Amino acid sequence: MNRTSEAIVDEVLARLGHLDTAPNLDGRSCATCMSRGQCAAICPKTTIAVVQAGANRIGNAPGETSETTQDFAPLIDHTILKPDATRQSVEKLLAEAREHVFASVCVNPHWVPLAAGYLRGSKVKVCTVVGFPLGANRTETKAFEARRACYDGAEEIDMVLNVGALKSGDLAAVEKDIRAVVESVGPRAIVKVILETAYLTTEEKVEACGAAKRAGAHYVKTSTGFAPSGATAEDIRLMRSVVGDRMGVKASGGIRNREDAEEMVRAGASRIGASASVAIVSGGSQ
Amino acid sequence: MNRTSEAIVDEVLARLGHLDTAPNLDGRSCATCMSRGQCAAICPKTTIAVVQAGANRIGNAPGETSETTQDFAPLIDHTILKPDATRQSVEKLLAEAREHVFASVCVNPHWVPLAAGYLRGSKVKVCTVVGFPLGANRTETKAFEARRACYDGAEEIDMVLNVGALKSGDLAAVEKDIRAVVESVGPRAIVKVILETAYLTTEEKVEACGAAKRAGAHYVKTSTGFAPSGATAEDIRLMRSVVGDRMGVKASGGIRNREDAEEMVRAGASRIGASASVAIVSGGSQ
Repeated sequence: MNRTSEAIVDEVLARLGHLDTAPNLDGRSCATCMSRGQCAAICPKTTIAVVQAGANRIGNAPGETSETTQDFAPLIDHTILKPDATRQSVEKLLAEAREHVFASVCVNPHWVPLAAGYLRGSKVKVCTVVGFPLGANRTETKAFEARRACYDGAEEIDMVLNVGALKSGDLAAVEKDIRAVVESVGPRAIVKVILETAYLTTEEKVEACGAAKRAGAHYVKTSTGFAPSGATAEDIRLMRSVVGDRMGVKASGGIRNREDAEEMVRAGASRIGASASVAIVSGGSQ
Repeated sequence: MNRTSEAIVDEVLARLGHLDTAPNLDGRSCATCMSRGQCAAICPKTTIAVVQAGANRIGNAPGETSETTQDFAPLIDHTILKPDATRQSVEKLLAEAREHVFASVCVNPHWVPLAAGYLRGSKVKVCTVVGFPLGANRTETKAFEARRACYDGAEEIDMVLNVGALKSGDLAAVEKDIRAVVESVGPRAIVKVILETAYLTTEEKVEACGAAKRAGAHYVKTSTGFAPSGATAEDIRLMRSVVGDRMGVKASGGIRNREDAEEMVRAGASRIGASASVAIVSGGSQ
């Protein structure tokens, strides 16, 4: 978009009271890409909001996706984290991700080399998990696992915070744990911090978001998908209110269809973690 | 026990068709202790079998437990692996373990330094988990986590095998993964390999036991407690039949009372992983 159209978008969003959740405001904090400016492909949530406000045409740079209207694909981390996932099921996920141009595939660390090789040259990033799903590892192990994942080709790291330390009131350990992972990957990857909201009180959720923000993480994320409950719109709103507009918020756990995804985006989510991604973009359910 | 009484025990066991599950036969393969000979405290299963066969007195070295008869404590890894376990709940577990002299406490890596400090000077070992509970980490990360745990004071490592690799037919990767952990800890710790039987076919369980044995692990173990199902007597019998008498077999997942524990021991288990350990030794349920 040129400067004039960006100004119009800003005006529309201001009137809607809706600002993009991960703008490139300070030259490095765009949680989605960290390198490019606001555009339909990189900031689809902005674009979707504009379309929802009545726009029927969106300027878009050549080569970028031209079907962003209500297109959730660039918001979705297409995910398979089941321990018994086979190579065949991971390869199916990778093919789907390349076909639908999801934001990323989210796979367990063992599958990162396979995913990185398969997706080389595509726009789909490789996301993996660290300290997953319990978060109760040693900080040094999490940092090692994250660094190794970058070496293997991951550009997004979804780490689980130390839930037990948080619930024991050891917020310093929680923050140090996150910072160690952020620093271990440096500019090679963005870091999303999984709160595992199912186990947390409202106060703990707020503390966790604050720790993630101070530690330099790029996103907060609700759930691993292995806890008794997953993402809720209420949690997304709370997390968004704490981290502000310069961090991303990822909704994950139990998002099975387009309606679930739409609810999360309306609540402030800038990324969706799901295994039902194809159903979400095709409007079905899984 | 002196040589005469050991000979009598061997005779009794031979007549029962029951051999101790982890004898110190080759000078290094006693999975329970790796350093001491067969005795009531170190090989309680042997002793229990003898008592069940009709013995009403057992010779025992001074300083060893004198209440081994039907005493499950030396068989139990007293376990807390919930991600939301607080420092307070871990400390409660440690106190219980010291009081009842369980074989070990099994805690997440974050709590190993606390456990090692608390249990210093007691007979209770510190056990922790590696690649837990999904097993889908990079081998290098598992090896790092195990080595770090030993540095922190752990003497028993319960690692999850790579379930996805196994189900993809990549048995070489499964074995290499286990061997890397075994070699990373060397003589400092014993390694138990969690099969996560809930996800495996009978053939895969057999393959997994074979891989663990070839890779030099000391135990095979049924479950993490995070899968849809846990230990069954049938799986314990199968695992025992594959690994033979020189490796340990640990039953874990869903063992809530003394009857469950007795069933597993009868099936061939030489170690029990449970959070209901106090209930098991006191004959209640949890």
